Amino acid sequence: MTLLEEIREQPAVLQGLLDHARTQVAAVANAIRARRVQYVYLVARGTSEHAGIYGQYVFGAFNGLPVALGAPSLFTVYERPPQVANALVVGVSQSGQSPDIVAVLAEGRRQGALTLAITNDPQSPLAEAAELSLAIQAGPERAVAATKTYTGELMLFAMLSAALADDPAMWVALERVPAAAAEALLLDPEIVAAAEHFRAMRECVVLGRGFHFATALEWSLKLKELAYVIAERYSTAEFQHGPIALVEPGFAILAVAPTDPGLAPVRDLLIRMRANQGAQLLILSDDPATLKEATVGLRLPTGVAPWLMPLVSIIPAQLFCHHLTIARGLNPATPRGLNKVTLTH
Amino acid sequence: MTLLEEIREQPAVLQGLLDHARTQVAAVANAIRARRVQYVYLVARGTSEHAGIYGQYVFGAFNGLPVALGAPSLFTVYERPPQVANALVVGVSQSGQSPDIVAVLAEGRRQGALTLAITNDPQSPLAEAAELSLAIQAGPERAVAATKTYTGELMLFAMLSAALADDPAMWVALERVPAAAAEALLLDPEIVAAAEHFRAMRECVVLGRGFHFATALEWSLKLKELAYVIAERYSTAEFQHGPIALVEPGFAILAVAPTDPGLAPVRDLLIRMRANQGAQLLILSDDPATLKEATVGLRLPTGVAPWLMPLVSIIPAQLFCHHLTIARGLNPATPRGLNKVTLTH
Repeated sequence: MTLLEEIREQPAVLQGLLDHARTQVAAVANAIRARRVQYVYLVARGTSEHAGIYGQYVFGAFNGLPVALGAPSLFTVYERPPQVANALVVGVSQSGQSPDIVAVLAEGRRQGALTLAITNDPQSPLAEAAELSLAIQAGPERAVAATKTYTGELMLFAMLSAALADDPAMWVALERVPAAAAEALLLDPEIVAAAEHFRAMRECVVLGRGFHFATALEWSLKLKELAYVIAERYSTAEFQHGPIALVEPGFAILAVAPTDPGLAPVRDLLIRMRANQGAQLLILSDDPATLKEATVGLRLPTGVAPWLMPLVSIIPAQLFCHHLTIARGLNPATPRGLNKVTLTH
Repeated sequence: MTLLEEIREQPAVLQGLLDHARTQVAAVANAIRARRVQYVYLVARGTSEHAGIYGQYVFGAFNGLPVALGAPSLFTVYERPPQVANALVVGVSQSGQSPDIVAVLAEGRRQGALTLAITNDPQSPLAEAAELSLAIQAGPERAVAATKTYTGELMLFAMLSAALADDPAMWVALERVPAAAAEALLLDPEIVAAAEHFRAMRECVVLGRGFHFATALEWSLKLKELAYVIAERYSTAEFQHGPIALVEPGFAILAVAPTDPGLAPVRDLLIRMRANQGAQLLILSDDPATLKEATVGLRLPTGVAPWLMPLVSIIPAQLFCHHLTIARGLNPATPRGLNKVTLTH
């Protein structure tokens, strides 16, 4: 039951970072200010890339920093790296081992860019390659499917954004997160029932927009890794530009739709897909009016700022994937064809 | 049969751009050089976003320019746009109508960034909002599923990259493209047979890496829009970091794997998935050793540079989707739930 244990450790990991990483994060923020960084060039794979997409929204919204999700093959396969000297080059990796991610940081540093590693292993090649590094401090993660390192990565991005913005209100909002994460774990019995409802699901689409897009991506990956569900993932905006054609009666739509400046059109889209195309809706939300539209709704903790909800909303999604895997008679400890550390070049 | 007609117009559209757009493209390249642009901030949706991802590879590989695929919701939903004054801000849209894409260009221009619209309608709001614009010159596109505007967008990116690099060899390579596109159309009878082989496919994964990732993305979208196939899409590197767990005996893998510096590991992965996981492989390639590994192979025209193959390889993919749609008794002219112009905010 390692996966379930690691899911349940998340409130403590998040609290630990708030308590112990703030000085380190402030030092990184100072280095970024001193170098007059113009944009972020970020590389990551899998779950860590989803954390990077969260970073794209928080650094954009609160720090004015555009974030480019980099293409490692330009550095490794084609050996034609772009010029990133004025960027903050960030590599995110639980293990810090993947050679392609390390190669991007090494080249960024060679060009004179400020480089930052975010990894759970401060002795890893990624941490060695970068000028600065932030440790996820999640303790060893043994399950193949990453959970606590993901929320730890999100927390580091959120703290770094708050430090760069130098905004006390952001720190106040952050203090709410560990308790909300613990409340999310209490949804477990309802999640068992939700997993039973969707037990026979062979495919689905997972939707979220803005800050919540990262949760949709990560939920979709966990569905694939653990329960072997074909889980398409889209922002609600992107979904309307083509893939919505897939929806037919009974099709499962999993939506991350909490309180947010962008909630109204997301809710309208969900209502339309249910009414006109016969979609079944599993909705994660803290908003009663949105939950009312769900086939199955899971109520997220209240009082979490929209920009921080991704640190909380992924927890019921992880639990859903765990319980769905068990309901389908599969073993969440041994996903087919995967190892904990994947080395791509 | 509008869709098929538009697929067949592509060699002429590509030749037309080479013949008539070079002066305009050179003027845009001069403006980019004069402004000392440090990176590209690109926004697009659906098919046009896939063209943007191609741009990410060509501008990175040949012009040293990092490309950030922007998040329009930061500008519209959250009203917290990042600082893009030192970027070239590019909006790509067939119709030039989508309000979120127009809003990003308008804000970029307000901040003092150089702005470029790439659209098939030079009188569209997108073209009006941008300082510079390049017309796709594809003639009216009537089918809901975009085809000739996509290859036209790729051609404009390829020409702009060649103009920025000021490299005569790139222009020589470009001259080969329209004839190769015409050769690709001749694969039609084999594609009809391939579509018949995969007629009952309910889901699949489409793979490609580097320059060919854009083709995988666009092939996947066409499968969804036209044939209602649940088509996951991944770079081969990303696929190994989790989603590979989905592959079970009989699972369809569609791969874009032409001659490329990155071909060998892609071929090895395909061979492993067939041997160990029982995958069925549909492969687009110009490489005989790779085609030999396919369950069904489609031979791409030879003599096309790897960076330009995306302008050619998407054509058999489009034809495959068209024929698959017909083989499944569906109508490619009227995808469920879609309109030609999608307005997202």
